[in-house]
Amino acid sequence: MSDYEVLEIGALDTWRTNDPVPEGTRPGKRFVDHEMSTQFIGLSANAIEPGETAPFWHTHSVLEEIYVFLGGRGRMALDDEVIDVGPGTTVRVGQGVWRHVQALPDSGEQLRWFCIRAGGDELGAIGRDGEIDRERSAPWG
Amino acid sequence: MSDYEVLEIGALDTWRTNDPVPEGTRPGKRFVDHEMSTQFIGLSANAIEPGETAPFWHTHSVLEEIYVFLGGRGRMALDDEVIDVGPGTTVRVGQGVWRHVQALPDSGEQLRWFCIRAGGDELGAIGRDGEIDRERSAPWG
Repeated sequence: MSDYEVLEIGALDTWRTNDPVPEGTRPGKRFVDHEMSTQFIGLSANAIEPGETAPFWHTHSVLEEIYVFLGGRGRMALDDEVIDVGPGTTVRVGQGVWRHVQALPDSGEQLRWFCIRAGGDELGAIGRDGEIDRERSAPWG
Repeated sequence: MSDYEVLEIGALDTWRTNDPVPEGTRPGKRFVDHEMSTQFIGLSANAIEPGETAPFWHTHSVLEEIYVFLGGRGRMALDDEVIDVGPGTTVRVGQGVWRHVQALPDSGEQLRWFCIRAGGDELGAIGRDGEIDRERSAPWG
């Protein structure tokens, strides 16, 4: 048996579910790497409704992240800056940068994106390197 | 200035172009990480026409890869096995596995996917770890 693994995560328009989700995740956020035995690559599939904001700011001390937006229109906050994001917007985020995401209220559809992460070692060896800030408000009010 | 970088790669249906492409790439294959200063994460955006096959088998000795298919219908060869792929099919491929991809002739649209790679060190330190086989024929004849 060759060393590969297959998982069906569904087409983009099926990512957002209000069904009960596993502990440590939430509707609209699926950690693909928690469902496969990945070695170095972390991957989540994300979908939020128009007007919805991610639940908190967060940052990483070891992991690099790349966000690839695939559908909808939104905004991404990176420390004190805010950029517009839409289909094809790809954002590399270095260590220590605080980030936040919102789907624009007038986005015609859900904002959907992959978040890819890797950190120069096996994910299991890196462990939890993230920090969350639930107190700081989002820059879009 | 925070440590982030933004690149617009366009919506999925714009990935395939027959315009001249940079050396080291080809129409329908865009190495996102060649256009950004990524540290650990490699990423390519791929699109091939119905009936088209990737130009060769390849394998990696250090890098893990994850293929995420987003549109169209196709097949992926992994050593001696062939699997069906379509929207949402996510395939983790370990080191040493030979892989190949085809868009089914009757796929109603281009086969589109991301290929993500990472290897436990900075990409620049890993360098070229891939091997190509242009002689071995594809299993779909």
